[in-house]
Amino acid sequence: DPNLKVFSLNSNLGLAEEIAEVIGVGLGKCSVTHFSDGEIHINIEESIRGCDVYVIQSTSDPVNEHLMEVLIMIDALKRASAKTINIVMPYYGYARQDRKARAREPITAKLVANLLETAGAHRVIALDLHAPQIQGFFDILIDHMQGVPILADYFEGKDLKDVVVVSPDHGGVTRARKLAERLKAPIAIIDKRRPRPNVAEIMNIVGNIEGKTAILIDDIIDTAGTITLAANALIENGAKEVYACCTHPVLSGPAIDRIQNSKIKELAVTNSIALCEEKKIDKIVQLSVAPLIAEAIIRVHEEESVSTLFD
Amino acid sequence: DPNLKVFSLNSNLGLAEEIAEVIGVGLGKCSVTHFSDGEIHINIEESIRGCDVYVIQSTSDPVNEHLMEVLIMIDALKRASAKTINIVMPYYGYARQDRKARAREPITAKLVANLLETAGAHRVIALDLHAPQIQGFFDILIDHMQGVPILADYFEGKDLKDVVVVSPDHGGVTRARKLAERLKAPIAIIDKRRPRPNVAEIMNIVGNIEGKTAILIDDIIDTAGTITLAANALIENGAKEVYACCTHPVLSGPAIDRIQNSKIKELAVTNSIALCEEKKIDKIVQLSVAPLIAEAIIRVHEEESVSTLFD
Ligand SMILES: Nc1ncnc2c1ncn2[C@@H]1O[C@H](COP(=O)(O)O)[C@@H](O)[C@H]1O
Ligand SMILES: Nc1ncnc2c1ncn2[C@@H]1O[C@H](COP(=O)(O)O)[C@@H](O)[C@H]1O
Repeated sequence: DPNLKVFSLNSNLGLAEEIAEVIGVGLGKCSVTHFSDGEIHINIEESIRGCDVYVIQSTSDPVNEHLMEVLIMIDALKRASAKTINIVMPYYGYARQDRKARAREPITAKLVANLLETAGAHRVIALDLHAPQIQGFFDILIDHMQGVPILADYFEGKDLKDVVVVSPDHGGVTRARKLAERLKAPIAIIDKRRPRPNVAEIMNIVGNIEGKTAILIDDIIDTAGTITLAANALIENGAKEVYACCTHPVLSGPAIDRIQNSKIKELAVTNSIALCEEKKIDKIVQLSVAPLIAEAIIRVHEEESVSTLFD
Repeated sequence: DPNLKVFSLNSNLGLAEEIAEVIGVGLGKCSVTHFSDGEIHINIEESIRGCDVYVIQSTSDPVNEHLMEVLIMIDALKRASAKTINIVMPYYGYARQDRKARAREPITAKLVANLLETAGAHRVIALDLHAPQIQGFFDILIDHMQGVPILADYFEGKDLKDVVVVSPDHGGVTRARKLAERLKAPIAIIDKRRPRPNVAEIMNIVGNIEGKTAILIDDIIDTAGTITLAANALIENGAKEVYACCTHPVLSGPAIDRIQNSKIKELAVTNSIALCEEKKIDKIVQLSVAPLIAEAIIRVHEEESVSTLFD
């Protein structure tokens, strides 16, 4: 369909190329550069008048740069008479700022939703938003997909024996249960608590992990503190080996060192966030979300019912 | 008035401190930091419920960082029940992207206006917007001030003889004329043209500069190509000496080298944009806009008529 156009911005060109290839289109031509003073300069280099445009951009680090790129791109597409502007955000930055954790804090995840709408987006296609409530922040259409099936396929392929899926905290139990169902495995939960202020946290493991292959699952791994402490606690408490997985490999600050030095045998992540060379270590396996996203774009574009793809 | 609060973000703390001092208030307490992954974290550390809040922020380089800081701050202020949110932008980034210079370009200056409004700003106070049309991009209140009086005061104080004010291009003639009126001097205009493609531009000087002290004026000096070529052309065509001035010292890329190596005797700029240490060279004099902005804040806050301050 010549009216379906896929554009990539600068956060995740490799993924965008893969998505375009699966769909069977070329990436749209546009230049996204900087002026000498750091301002973003976008020029769309082909007509998109009357087209349904899909823009692939994760608002990963540098998040403000990547977010402004997508807002400016939306403005350019709108003024160039795109029929619909659909923003595919494999990783939605600022998702953890989804509530006022303290007084007088912003709710930046909601602000970002409003900015996308104001710029002129018609629809957002997102993957594993940190909290399901974020879908309610949008007045425009939002399609939400889950990364668990991709992680589940990978671990199914490994054919591991005597598996237990472990959630590193209470917030992640639903996600752990989904993976456990797919792997026909039980779950366990790590129940952290601090007995008194300024005393180290105690890692209490709820569920049986003795002699088992544990698979830790989270949505985001950022500085990797939680996940590596959890992995080590599992081994100390008798787990045979520990795998870990997540959808979004933020991996900032000390993350890579911590993972290297932890008891984690292997970490499976998706390519919702591109990894720079220094982050591509042997322990990390990156799984592609391109087939999933390509299918989502085709279904959205053809207005098919997509009950199994979106939630 | 305890209901008047002034906050600074990270672009121009020195200027904000000066403004607060002139007004006679302390700067509001807030922390503007980054999480490990580069996301901005703002926490306002005092109550601002029912207050008229003035936030000082130039969207200078790194422009996307500084712009997101102000948008997130507005969100936090709104949710903390500020009565009015007034954004003081001594330098308004993306102002040069104020029209489609080519097909399928964005109009980012308009996008920024919309983003400020969506976040929840009630008013913007700006200085020397690149084009007066940008005022029309706002549906919220906009107060616009000019930098010429500050530059004029400075050159009046130098008591130069036989001055001619020179506009480096046709677009700047109105600004040059304002400075010339204040200095009771004539004007000249540099009329660049390229006789054929791929042939060097010819600098044709319209007006008499022979033996005179020329003062070049522009609103923004960015890479300093235009201004230094103009200065050198003036000397070659018989000017005695050349001063230059502008409101906004963007000074990106080769700017400092070009200014050092040019025939410009001295460059007067304002502190609408903070200069990093490497940019503080002897040839550059920085004049403060703090008294002007402080007065604007007081007048806006007291709802005085301000016919001479704003245009
Ligand atoms: N980029 C970030 N990095 C680390 N912490 C964050 C980030 N964004 C928000 N937070 C904090 O993380 C908490 C929310 O995370 P969670 O409890 O996992 O939903 C809140 O206290 C936020 O202030
Ligand atoms: N940050 C920037 N640096 C250099 N040029 C820019 C910048 N932003 C916009 N422009 C271009 O500058 C031109 C407008 O400048 P002007 O003709 O001085 O109004 C347009 O062609 C813009 O594409």
